Formats: sequence, C-alpha cells, structure tokens
Amino acid sequence: AINGSRLWDSLMEMAKIGATPKGGVCRLALTDLDKQSRDLFVRWCEDAGCTITVDAIGNIFARRPGRNNALPPILMGSHLDSQPTGGKFDGVYGVLAGLEVVRTLNDLNYQTEAPIEVVAWTNEEGSRFAPAMVASGVFAGTFDLEYGLSRKDLDGKTMGEELARIGYAGDAPIRGRDLGAYFEAHIEQGPILEAEDKTIGVVTDCQGQRWYEITFTGQEAHAGPTPMSRRRDALLGAARVVEVVNRIGLEHAPLACATVGLMQIHPNSRNVIPGRVFFTVDFRHPDDAVLAEMDAKLRNAVTRVAQEVGLETEFEQIWYYAPVKFDAGCVDAVRGAVAELGYSNRDMVSGAGHDACYLARVTPTSMIFIPCVDGISHNEIEHAHPEWCEAGCNVLLRAVVAKADA
Amino acid sequence: AINGSRLWDSLMEMAKIGATPKGGVCRLALTDLDKQSRDLFVRWCEDAGCTITVDAIGNIFARRPGRNNALPPILMGSHLDSQPTGGKFDGVYGVLAGLEVVRTLNDLNYQTEAPIEVVAWTNEEGSRFAPAMVASGVFAGTFDLEYGLSRKDLDGKTMGEELARIGYAGDAPIRGRDLGAYFEAHIEQGPILEAEDKTIGVVTDCQGQRWYEITFTGQEAHAGPTPMSRRRDALLGAARVVEVVNRIGLEHAPLACATVGLMQIHPNSRNVIPGRVFFTVDFRHPDDAVLAEMDAKLRNAVTRVAQEVGLETEFEQIWYYAPVKFDAGCVDAVRGAVAELGYSNRDMVSGAGHDACYLARVTPTSMIFIPCVDGISHNEIEHAHPEWCEAGCNVLLRAVVAKADA
Ligand SMILES: NC(=O)NCCC(=O)O
Ligand SMILES: NC(=O)NCCC(=O)O
Repeated sequence: AINGSRLWDSLMEMAKIGATPKGGVCRLALTDLDKQSRDLFVRWCEDAGCTITVDAIGNIFARRPGRNNALPPILMGSHLDSQPTGGKFDGVYGVLAGLEVVRTLNDLNYQTEAPIEVVAWTNEEGSRFAPAMVASGVFAGTFDLEYGLSRKDLDGKTMGEELARIGYAGDAPIRGRDLGAYFEAHIEQGPILEAEDKTIGVVTDCQGQRWYEITFTGQEAHAGPTPMSRRRDALLGAARVVEVVNRIGLEHAPLACATVGLMQIHPNSRNVIPGRVFFTVDFRHPDDAVLAEMDAKLRNAVTRVAQEVGLETEFEQIWYYAPVKFDAGCVDAVRGAVAELGYSNRDMVSGAGHDACYLARVTPTSMIFIPCVDGISHNEIEHAHPEWCEAGCNVLLRAVVAKADA
Repeated sequence: AINGSRLWDSLMEMAKIGATPKGGVCRLALTDLDKQSRDLFVRWCEDAGCTITVDAIGNIFARRPGRNNALPPILMGSHLDSQPTGGKFDGVYGVLAGLEVVRTLNDLNYQTEAPIEVVAWTNEEGSRFAPAMVASGVFAGTFDLEYGLSRKDLDGKTMGEELARIGYAGDAPIRGRDLGAYFEAHIEQGPILEAEDKTIGVVTDCQGQRWYEITFTGQEAHAGPTPMSRRRDALLGAARVVEVVNRIGLEHAPLACATVGLMQIHPNSRNVIPGRVFFTVDFRHPDDAVLAEMDAKLRNAVTRVAQEVGLETEFEQIWYYAPVKFDAGCVDAVRGAVAELGYSNRDMVSGAGHDACYLARVTPTSMIFIPCVDGISHNEIEHAHPEWCEAGCNVLLRAVVAKADA
C-alpha cells in the first residue's frame, strides 16, 4: 500500500507554488510558477532514482527501470498547470500519485517487469493557451508540433517562446514511442461520487467537446446621443448568444454542458456602445450526434442574432474531439484493483477532458477518479480529502503493477 | 471672424498626441498623453498672452484680461481627455475654439470689458475614472474635492495620485469664484444636425443621466462536469441584464438611451463557469420622471435575474444628475450670434453630458453644437468638417464678446 501522508504532504508542498489567498492555486501554463512546479517535480523524481527526459512540447517523463527495459513502459501522470482560480488537486494529484507509486515501489524494493514512467503533460488546462490538452495531443499525433508551439495567449506570446524561456523545450522524441499503457488518476471535478458516497470512479468514457471563438463587430458610438434605433451593439449580440448557449445546454440536459467562460469587450468604456466583443463557447456531450445538434443550433443562433443586431461575425470551431471509449483491458485493471482493495465504486463518464483522451489514441488507456468536495473544481476552494487521495493512489499502484508485470 | 484654418491646424496638431492607427485619439485622463496635451495647450495660451492657473483637481484656466478686471470673467472651454477609442473633436474642439477666440481678439487688438478665460476641465469622459465631468462637478460644488481626488481607475490608481504624478495638482481657488457666464462649443455626437442639414445646434437643455455599477457573484466551477442544474453562472445573469437594459431603452424610445458599456468577467477562462461579473449601466432621458421609471425597472430586473440564476448582487447607482435647463440669457446670446451670422440652426437637447451641465449650477451657461459626420462619436472615425468647426467658433466669439461687453 502507498504512503498516504507522504502523498498528502507532497500535494500540500506543491500547492505552495502559486498559492492564492483563498486557498487555491494560480499556476498558468509556462509561467514562472509553472517552471517552479516543474523544477520541484523533477527534483523529487530524481531523488526517487528516476531518469528525466523532456520532449519538444515540454512534456516531462520520469522513468523507473523495469527488469526488462526492452518492454514498452507503463505511463501514469497528469498535469501541473492550473486555472487562474484553480485548486490544489486538478492535475497535480495524478502527477504526484504517479510519483508516490514510484516511491512506494522503491520502499518495497519492488522491480516491475516493464519500466514505468511518471509524466507531467504541458498546458492541459487550455486557459492561458487554447485548446486544452494540447501537448498530450501533440504527443499522440493529433496535433502537429508546429501547431502546439504556435498556440498564443491573449497577449500574443506563443507556447514555443514560453517553453524556451522557462527552459522546458527538450529533445526527447515526441512521436513513435512504443507504450504499454497509460493510467491517469484525477479528481472527478463533478458531484456524482460524493453524492453517492463512492470512493472510486472507474472511468469508462469521456464526453466529446467542441470549443468555439466568436467575434461580433458592430459600431462604437456614444452611449448618450446615439438613439437606440441606430445602434449596432456588439455586447447585446454576445449577451443573446450567452442566453442561447445556456438554453442549448438545458435542452440537452442532464448530459449536456454549455458554457461561455471568456469574454472581452472593446473598448470597454461605460459611456461607449461596445463595438467589438470576443467570446468563447464550450460544448460537451457524451454522444457525438447530440454534440453535432448543439453545434447546428449554435450556428443558427449566431447567424440570427448577428442579423437582428446588425453585427459582423467571425465564427470558428477551434477544437473538437469525439467522445472517447477507454481501453477495456485498462478499465478491467482498474476494476480489479478496486475490487481487491474493497473500495466502494461506480463506473463513470468523465465530464472534463483529460490528457488520457489523447493518449487513448496511441496506447491502451483508462482513468481513476476520486471524489472532490461538493463537486467543485476550477475554483480555489476545490478540495479532496486525504483518504480519497490515498485510495485513488492505491488503485493506481495496483493497476500499473498489474500491467507492468503482465 | 475667427481664423478657420488656424483653428483646424491646432485641432490636427493636438490630435497627434495619442493618435491611433484608425485616425482617432486615445488620451485617457491623467495619463502621460493627457499631460502632453495639457502642456501644449498651456504653451499655446501663454504664447497668446494669457495667464495660466490650475486648481486642485487639475482644471486649467487661461485668462485674457478685460478693460475692467474687477468684473467676473466669461468662461469658455471643454476638455482635452478622450475615450480609449475616441476622436479628434470630442472636447478638444471646445477648448481650442476658446483659444481661437482669444487669438482672434488679439489679432483685432480687441479688449473686452470683462476678462475672458479659456478652461480645460479634468477627466470629463469618465472612462478611466468614473463618473464623467467629475472635475467640473467639483468646481461647481456638486462633489467634494476629496471625492474627486479619490476616484479610482480599474487598476486602483486615484485621480489625486495621477494629478500629482503629471504635475497638474495646482493651487488656484476651486470654489467661490465669481463668474460672468460659461459657454461650451462641442460636436453634437449624435445624428440630428447633419440629418437636417443644419450648421449650428442652439442647446437649450441636457438630458439627465444615471450610472450604475453592478457585481453579480455566483460560483466558479468546471465547465465540463458541472451539470446545468447546479450552476450559478454570473455571466448568464449579466447577459440577461444586458438584454433588459436594451429593452428598457426601447420601451422609452425615441428619447431614452440605455447602455451596458463595460463588463469584466472573472476568472475569464474558457472552461470555467464565470464566478463573478462586474458591469455598468448608463441610462439617459430628458425627463427626470422617465429616468426614475427606468431606474425602477432596472432594480426589479436585477433582483429577478439574481434570483433566477442564484446570484449575489452588489448594486450601486454611482452617478445621477437631473436634466439641465440652460440659462435663457446665454441661450439668447447664442441665438443672437447665429442670427447675425446667418447659419442654419435648430434648438437641441444634448444627449451627452458636458461640463456645462455642472457649470450651469454656478453661473449662467449654455452650449453651441456643430454636426459630426454620421452622428458618430466615441469612435476613432469621429469627424467634423472644417466649415462646421469654423462656424461654431464664430458663434462662440460673438456670444462671448456680447456677454463680456454687456
Ligand atoms: N481536467 C480538466 O480540467 N481539463 C481541462 C480541459 C477541460 O476543460 O475539459
Ligand atoms: N461629451 C461627452 O462625451 N461626455 C462624456 C459624458 C457622457 O457620457 O455624457
């Protein structure tokens, strides 16, 4: 069994990097704080005897040799970056649970047949640089390296520049590695496990996503002498789309999710009718056909609203991935571990996207969920109890060892 | 008659300070660029033989003596600050038209009976620091000096700090000066004069305004695994209020204006349900009773929307002024000048607020409008033809001299 308090201490230590007053973490991808968390992770892995490699998109691999190093490695991990108002567990938990598996095997002097690797993927959150999971997507061949390196933040800085700046543009091969399997432990980020009093979610699927960027352009004009009838108010258009997005989510509830999370208003002055608004839409559903229906509704609504208000439109779907079915063998390995350990559990569909979704395209993959308090994530108050963290890590240990020794 | 090309050249020279690629001006109050425009104005006034004083809220007065300097001065002016995407005429025109009156009187070696003063008021726009017209409001005794100096921009910098930084916190008396009259020349900022092919607007009234600041607080949560039914999306609430504000404007059209010009979303990340949104509302109407009706509708709607969406609300009316009736004597002076000059004209109600609205509380006041192309203002493409600028300045000259010699 793993050492729950060592895992917890490492989580709390890592959470100091980018700690926010409300108890959360702000550690945006490829900032100085992200570099600090990477440096700490690398140091811990080296202390645990691992060999570190970094690929060209900044993914970090910490390798613990097996008895037969010609065998493809079993990977486990997640990400270290956070949302602007993120929590202490989202991502970090999966990385440090992987490290705890290594530390436990060291304690037990246990050598697996195949090598195992702990991995920290770059920019999973997609908050500073869209889309999310971009570096695991590059690793899995879904995106070109060039695409990944050229992602821009709102200030125009690219992932490539920022990787070089913090010293994490590595030279490990990014494609064509032979892998044995990938396991990712993560907090659920939703309310189901806690509500049903279950300790472990056996994740069988991940819902599909579509992300959009929309720009409405009307005309800036004075809020005082410009009659209502002569206005082309870009914010009025954006507000109508926010309402429509919410309605689309409700029409396909309870499974659909539909969110406008980001909006920038120009010139953003109290007495100026907004001339331009940029905003994003995030759609999710486990059924690809429903996701396509939601897409069609959005396109219709944007066209209609633009006509009503007299706006020009730029509309782009910037990210799409179909619902993912995880590997039956990996899911069984998790189910077997949970059964041996006797944890209460249920099968689950992931509502969030995870690096595992892209890894599933190149190697057998599945995920292990633990609950989080009130289902709250992407929030500074995000919390997971130490017992939950310990339980998930025990499942990870057994699933990984089972695969590595198979 | 004034020198139209000298006036135009000065306008174009001043427009270089903070010039934007699209032909407009970004010269926010109390920035380095605002300082540059003040310095240039002061230099021009000194070259024209005026004496400069600056008061504690940064208003600049350039005095041309009369024959009898015991008489209260006749003031004319406007402001040098602009919107973030402002034009070359809004405000600057009234200041430089005042300077052109002084230069013309110098050319003619004409000494008025009472002294005359050109004034540039601080932060008329209310864009960087809300509310608008704050420094003329302090001058007129509507606001305390402390209130004026403590206005904050979105970065938390105060007007007092910024005035000191750019060297325009002066020591001229800010209250209790005896004034003869105030005239303000300005572009209309609306479409009426141009549409009716009139050169001059004789401004008899100014509509009332109410400005609000609203903060909705819901709960940040993950856009993926958080079911629609569990959300408290602050942006959804704000979007509904944007729609209501527009409807209130339409219900009281054609005279009402209703605008949400500024909105800040927190944390503003694509895959996070917005937890907090701050936004502003700007209401205008020439009839105070209707403005009160609009206010009541807004309050009801905000309460209803907050309940629907599950949001906490902070709601504050941060600015109010009742509709203004300008002084009959000053309006007659303008009407007389227009008649002598034979310009086509009409009486008008100002849709925008102006420093004249506060000055009207302490001295006989009125305004002179000239058209602007397509009625567009608070926009980089704002434009007024040289003939219009010249005509308005000729009216100003005659009205001011009539008052100063009366
Ligand atoms: N797990 C997680 O928060 N991923 C970010 C990508 C997403 O929004 O699904
Ligand atoms: N003239 C002008 O643009 N004033 C700003 C204050 C207002 O919004 O009415």
